[in-house]
Amino acid sequence: MHGIGNDYIFVDCFEQSLPEAPEVLAPKLSDRHFGIGGDGLILILPSDVADARMRIFNADGSEAEMCGNGVRCVAKYIYERGLSRKNPLRIETGRGILSLQLKIQGDRVTEVTVDMGEPILEAARIPTTLPGSPVVEAPLTLDDGTSVNVTCVSMGNPHCVIFTEDLTDETFRRLGPIIEKHPAFPQRVNVEFVRVCSPQRVEVRVWERGSGETLACGTGACAVCVAGALTGRTERKITVRLPGGELITEWAPSGSVFMTGPATTVFTGEWPAEIEPAR
Amino acid sequence: MHGIGNDYIFVDCFEQSLPEAPEVLAPKLSDRHFGIGGDGLILILPSDVADARMRIFNADGSEAEMCGNGVRCVAKYIYERGLSRKNPLRIETGRGILSLQLKIQGDRVTEVTVDMGEPILEAARIPTTLPGSPVVEAPLTLDDGTSVNVTCVSMGNPHCVIFTEDLTDETFRRLGPIIEKHPAFPQRVNVEFVRVCSPQRVEVRVWERGSGETLACGTGACAVCVAGALTGRTERKITVRLPGGELITEWAPSGSVFMTGPATTVFTGEWPAEIEPAR
Repeated sequence: MHGIGNDYIFVDCFEQSLPEAPEVLAPKLSDRHFGIGGDGLILILPSDVADARMRIFNADGSEAEMCGNGVRCVAKYIYERGLSRKNPLRIETGRGILSLQLKIQGDRVTEVTVDMGEPILEAARIPTTLPGSPVVEAPLTLDDGTSVNVTCVSMGNPHCVIFTEDLTDETFRRLGPIIEKHPAFPQRVNVEFVRVCSPQRVEVRVWERGSGETLACGTGACAVCVAGALTGRTERKITVRLPGGELITEWAPSGSVFMTGPATTVFTGEWPAEIEPAR
Repeated sequence: MHGIGNDYIFVDCFEQSLPEAPEVLAPKLSDRHFGIGGDGLILILPSDVADARMRIFNADGSEAEMCGNGVRCVAKYIYERGLSRKNPLRIETGRGILSLQLKIQGDRVTEVTVDMGEPILEAARIPTTLPGSPVVEAPLTLDDGTSVNVTCVSMGNPHCVIFTEDLTDETFRRLGPIIEKHPAFPQRVNVEFVRVCSPQRVEVRVWERGSGETLACGTGACAVCVAGALTGRTERKITVRLPGGELITEWAPSGSVFMTGPATTVFTGEWPAEIEPAR
């Protein structure tokens, strides 16, 4: 399944157990030439405290706390397979129990809204050494003496948002890695390049910390929404166009950021391969 | 399935038909984020003149004539599913009917030997404008004035083999694209960088025309075998270590080049996904 191109291999652990530890299995299955291929492995498990529990393992075998694109797929799976028919669904993740609102057509889930929590705006907690708290349109000086204005938001992971008309490969691939590793970000940073199309719509390219360019980044889309509102460039509810597709993000009056997007089932299968008996 | 990392999606068309034209289906299925993911799509079909027929579609939807790594997988599939139990197997491809010798353990095919045909050594038919026919250790002058010695072989597609101790990323990625597009090769060229470990063993990195670095190239391994024999650097039967695994290649006294390697089944599945009824 994938959420706007952020693709995972999902294993239903309600009725089966893994043949190996997930840390070992995730790199094998995620390999795009020798395995099934994906950004990682997501286990769908029973929960004592919610309707289901998910665990996410990156392609390198490390465990992640949460993934906004992945959790939408988990919600779709749970509902469509009838593991639960509640709406909203409650899913236990490494960031606590999330409530997911499902949009249902017939017996299919077409969209899922996730409460991504409140943004962190204090500079020290993002973390960044840039002045201001919140850090809004602060000049970040680069090695070559030029500077870019950045707005910093943490959605549990640090983001640096740059509003620009220039989303070309050349600028993106040159500045992305430089800003990711800039000393102003002691834990490195995800970098969003944002072109504002209208107060309700933006186009974004995300340079992910440790991964480079990706098709979709849920927390990045939320950080862009908050940064747009903080700078007055956009309204508090916007459509975010990413390379893999679109998300709708809203910084609600309650303080939480809500992200809405699709989830897509691509194929089902067996690993290792089930070899049929010879005819 | 894959042959040393060259991975395809295989569809058994003995008992089912495609939902769409293969030119349309191949890009959808091959997409590594939105589809199943693979280097392309291979159809396994009944044949009027052989035990089976295969058609290969690249990830861009174009049809290829043959693929040495793919045809080994087809042979494994046909034998293990009992579509035919002949050995050797005869498979119809875009380059005619190939005879494949299977190595069988229990009811599994562990290795397949493919007759890859005779190398083409005439410069005009490779094609290259370099002097000599065969073109053996001919100096190829680059834009910066330096030159490299190259040996040219066609295995149905053009190859330029360079013997060197230097297989570093830096040299490979700098020279690969320059040589691929060098005016001495009017149809461009695949470039093999070869380190001779012993007269029976080489290590190779292949820069594929139009694709860049790949994990495995069957015709490239065969071209290296021929070039090694032509230059006296290796014997006529060698083990070729590629990034994705090993192949054994032999330039037989008959003139044909035989390639032996493994074929691996990874997973089986249904596309589009089979959604089970709600519980």
